Parts: sequence; C-alpha cells; structure tokens
Amino acid sequence: MTTTLPTEASPSPDVFQSLEGVCAGRGLDALNQRLVELRVFLEDDISQVERGLGDVGGGDTPAQQSVRHLLDQDGKRLRPICVALAARSGSGFNSAARVYAVAVEMVHNATLLHDDVVDVGDRRRGADAARVIYGNAASIFGGDWLLVDALCRIQAVGQPGVLERMLAVVKEMVIAESLQLARRGKVRSSAADYFSIISGKTAALFRWAMFAGARAGGLDERATAALEVYGQKLGVAFQIVDDVLDFVGDPGATGKAMLTDLREGKMTYPLILAMERDASLAAVLESAMDADESAAIDPQACAKVARAVTSARAGEDSLELATKFCREAVKSLEVLPHGRARSSLEAVAMSTPRRRK
Amino acid sequence: MTTTLPTEASPSPDVFQSLEGVCAGRGLDALNQRLVELRVFLEDDISQVERGLGDVGGGDTPAQQSVRHLLDQDGKRLRPICVALAARSGSGFNSAARVYAVAVEMVHNATLLHDDVVDVGDRRRGADAARVIYGNAASIFGGDWLLVDALCRIQAVGQPGVLERMLAVVKEMVIAESLQLARRGKVRSSAADYFSIISGKTAALFRWAMFAGARAGGLDERATAALEVYGQKLGVAFQIVDDVLDFVGDPGATGKAMLTDLREGKMTYPLILAMERDASLAAVLESAMDADESAAIDPQACAKVARAVTSARAGEDSLELATKFCREAVKSLEVLPHGRARSSLEAVAMSTPRRRK
Repeated sequence: MTTTLPTEASPSPDVFQSLEGVCAGRGLDALNQRLVELRVFLEDDISQVERGLGDVGGGDTPAQQSVRHLLDQDGKRLRPICVALAARSGSGFNSAARVYAVAVEMVHNATLLHDDVVDVGDRRRGADAARVIYGNAASIFGGDWLLVDALCRIQAVGQPGVLERMLAVVKEMVIAESLQLARRGKVRSSAADYFSIISGKTAALFRWAMFAGARAGGLDERATAALEVYGQKLGVAFQIVDDVLDFVGDPGATGKAMLTDLREGKMTYPLILAMERDASLAAVLESAMDADESAAIDPQACAKVARAVTSARAGEDSLELATKFCREAVKSLEVLPHGRARSSLEAVAMSTPRRRK
Repeated sequence: MTTTLPTEASPSPDVFQSLEGVCAGRGLDALNQRLVELRVFLEDDISQVERGLGDVGGGDTPAQQSVRHLLDQDGKRLRPICVALAARSGSGFNSAARVYAVAVEMVHNATLLHDDVVDVGDRRRGADAARVIYGNAASIFGGDWLLVDALCRIQAVGQPGVLERMLAVVKEMVIAESLQLARRGKVRSSAADYFSIISGKTAALFRWAMFAGARAGGLDERATAALEVYGQKLGVAFQIVDDVLDFVGDPGATGKAMLTDLREGKMTYPLILAMERDASLAAVLESAMDADESAAIDPQACAKVARAVTSARAGEDSLELATKFCREAVKSLEVLPHGRARSSLEAVAMSTPRRRK
C-alpha cells in the first residue's frame, strides 16, 4: 500500500498529530507510516465531523456558550475516528456514521463539562475550562443540553438499538464517575475498583463508538462484536495512558497541569501499582490527605509520591499493561477482512500507549 | 355523581392534600368535593406510581443516594397525576401510562437536583437539599443518572414519538433554565421573557405528561392536541402560582424559605407587575443587587420589595392571570367526552390557583 502526504492542511491539525509524530524518530517508522496513511484515509471524514461539531450549540444562552467554548478547543476526536473506522470496516462513512461520530464527541464533551464542575477543574485542552469563563451553572446546563442534543441526533437516525445502547452507556458512565467520586481519597483502593471505574467512565463510550459505526456500516453480528471488543480494550488502554500522563506528561502537550488526579485523591493504576511495591507509600498518602471532604493532597506530598511512582517503575509497567490491552484490541480484529480500515484500527491501537497528549 | 371518602390512608397523603383542603372552608365546597372524587379515582394509580418511584435509584453511589433522598420526600406528584388523567381520558391507566407517570416525575426530580446546585439551594420539600447531605457532585451525577434512567424507561415502552418528544422537552427545559440564569439580576426584564422562561422550564413537561398519557390511552390526534393545550396552560398557571408563593407562601407548607426567588434575583411575574405599577421599585432593586455575579439581593431590600409587591396587589393580580390560564385549560377539554377523567382534570386546573404549597 502506498500513499502520499496530504497537500492540504488537515481539518483539525491536532486530530492526527496526537497520534503521528509521537512515533517519528523513535525507531517506529513503520507505525508512523501507517498513521500517515490513517490521516489520508480519514481526512475527509474528520473534516465532516469538524463541520458537524461547528454547528453544535448555536444560541446565546450561557449553557450554549459553554458548549461552544469547549468544542472550539482542539480535541483528539479519537471517538469519532473510532466511529469512522468501524463504519469503513463495512459499507463506508455514510450519513448515519457522520451523525454518530458527531454525537459521540458531543456526549464525551458533555461529560467533560460536568466533570470540570465536579473536580473544580480550571484548565481543559490548554485553555480555561468553560466553568471558569461562564460559571459552574452554565457548565451544568451546557452538559445537560449537549447530552440531550446528542441523544436527539442519534434518535433521529432511527436505527434499532443504537439509541438504547447509548442510553445504557451514559448510565454506566455516570455510575462509574459517581463511584470514582466515592472512592476519592480512599488510599486502600484496589486495582479491581480502578478497572471497574475506567471501564464505565471511558471504555463504555469507545465500545459504543465502534458499535454505532459498525451498525452504520451494516456489519454482521460477528464483526460488530469484534469491533466492540476492540473499543472496550482500546478505551481501557487509553485511560491507563491518560493516568500515566498525570505523572509523566508534559503540561504543554496534555493541556492540563501534572499531578492533577493525584492532588484530587484519585487512585489511578500507576499509583496503586506503586503502593503494591512500596509499602510505605500508603501511609505517606494517608497522612497527606486533607481531612476535609475534598480529599485533596498537598503539593509537597504530591511531589514525593510522584518520585515514588517513578522509582517503582509504575509508569512504565502501567504502559506495558496498556500495550497488552492494545495488542488484545488488535487481535480482536482478526475476524475482519484485511484492508485500510483494519490496518488503520491497528495503527490507532498500537500508537495509543505511545501518545504524549 | 356520588362518592365516599376513602377509608384507607391515601398512598402518599401529601399528593392529594396539596389540592384538597385548600378549598375547604373557603366557600368552595363544590370544588373540594370534586377533589375528593379525584382522590378516590386516582388512589390506586398513584399508589402504583409511588411503588414505581420507590424502586428508582437502587445502588450505593453518592449519585444514587442523592436521588433516593429527593424521591423519599413527599412531592405533589402533579405531573404523574396529569399522565394518569390523560390516560384515563382514553383506554385507562395501563402499563405504558405507569411508565410515563414514573418517568415524568423522574425527569422533574432530575432537574431539581441540578437546579439546587445551580441556585445553591439548601432546602427542598421541607428537608435538606440532597446537595447539602451528599455534596454538589453527587447531585450533578444524580441528576444525570435520573434523567437518563427515565429516558431508558420511556424508550423501552417503544411507542413512536414519545421518547422523541421528551428529548425535545428536556432541551427546551435546559435552554429555559439557562435563559433564566442569564436574566438573573436583570431588573429591567420583560413579561415576555418571563413567559418564555416558564413555558420552557415548567409548562413543557406538563404538556409532555398530557401527551404521553394520551398516547398510552390510545387517544386520537384531536383529543391528544386538546390535552396538550391543557398541559401547557396548566403548567404556566402552576409556575405563576409558585412564583406568587415566593412572596406570600407559608414556608411550613411550601417547604422552602420565602423570598428565595427574589433573593436570587429572579424576575418573576408578580415582581414585573409590581415594577410596572411602582416606577421607583426598579431603582430600589438595582441598588440592592450585589455587584458580584450571583446577583443576590440583601434581606432588608427583599423585605421592602415584598411590601411593594403586596401594596401593588401584584400577587392577587398574578393569581388572577393564573386563574385565566386555568379557565383556558378547562376550555380546551371541551372536545373530550364528559366523565370522571375530564371532571378530574377540571378540578385539578381550578384548584391550582388556590394551592398553598
């Protein structure tokens, strides 16, 4: 398969650069070549998604302004990419797939608007969070509106089961977020808790993206199920990497401050792993935890914990686990015919543990 | 038509007492008699709704506990009553109607959970607001969960158009709430703004309740449209009365402190009317408004404004307008056959301007 670099600017430069480039110069030229191919393959689809997202939130209420502000920041658009690649594994990126790709990004952004209020987050995608500019109330109503508008769009397509599945997924996401909230600051959290939370809050929506794309593309049950497994595994891997980036990420790339999760008392996998390896760490964390309900951890203790995570090699081993999930994601694709869609899905999965933003 | 008083305790004593009793001893015996009939007519339906609501929110996350806390407080359940009476205008209170009656109360409570966070409300239905006990985050996720669970239930019934209409209504509600937020503290608000806000935030859901009940009861388009007009008019009247009760209500009955709306800078109809009649009032309000973004008004100024509203007879005239809407609601029922359902709807409408909670 040969390809040329696109001559036009990509629709949203950020979309593909978040995957490309991370591999260049790191002895991963073959993978990088496949990501360049992915860009060419999906450029038009993602342009359409961006145009679709550009039309969302028209209106001058604070809720809609919050929505517009968040959608105007560059995002990775990884969930729409999943919809597009699943649809292209079947009959192609048709009008139903376009609606689902826009809707999945809307639902994702709706959860971000509520999460930023819950976490009192100030920065998002390298800019002020919407709640900082328009207030918490506008972010709450903005999230409500965005979620329901996405559901309306999915409903309007009218494919059996697709809205039903999204409703179930949103419930799963909210329960997982609420569980994460209840577990905040609970130092003796288990890896099982962690995986249950990230499966609900992140992987469920990736799984839906693959399911909806497969439905749009008219795939049979077997292929659809395989793509759903891919989405679930990719989603888990994606969240593990996100949680590693809280310890080792570059704030200029991730768009948010380092150690944010840690400061908020979120017990992520690298931290749980480090505690298993360094028995003294739990006591350090417990004594550093604020007595108030916010369960916030003071910056000095955060730095100490971050060093312990590094010396326990918990970041590297977490990424190794993410890589294992991505390999399983790729393996699930074996029932699909070879082609650009499958090859692109493989490239997305294998680049995920290497992403830096 | 004759009837006897029920000998058993009513399912939720609060449900019917909110309508009954307000008329007793006020020379409104005929209306009160019709409300007693309503109680007998709907007792079993509302018992079923209460049992249905009792099963909602099972789970031990803070979000679900917030939901449980709110649903455990007595509510007026006026929206489920609307569903039941619409369904009984047709083939009866069947399983679809039961689902819609539970779901409409769930959606209403979902908005209350978010509203209390937005308004920093401390009391609701005579008890601490859920956010006071479980925190803002739990109320945000609780509202999300409750809304989506309600949508799932409506979806599962599978009647064409009913979920679609609910999605449109929720969007309308959120936009209206957001508009109300943007108008907060804007003293020079118009009556047109006010009616646009209450039509979206309150009347839309009453309209849906009547629509869904009509669909469950298999009514034709003409009867359905008439019931929707009833729901719209009743909802507007209900909200006007709510806004009057902020000035003249008994906190022991309403379950929340007086002048709450006023303190929050909400420009309700009695206030807009008083300002039209007392040109000095706008300046009083403007100077009393906090400079910060909360637009809160200090208690002394509130008391002064409340006196001005009273001496302008703005409360009485607002209730007169509510009565006019209720008469129009009753008039819309003319296309329906005479019977207990229609008579009950008439009684609900005519008692609405007289409610004290």
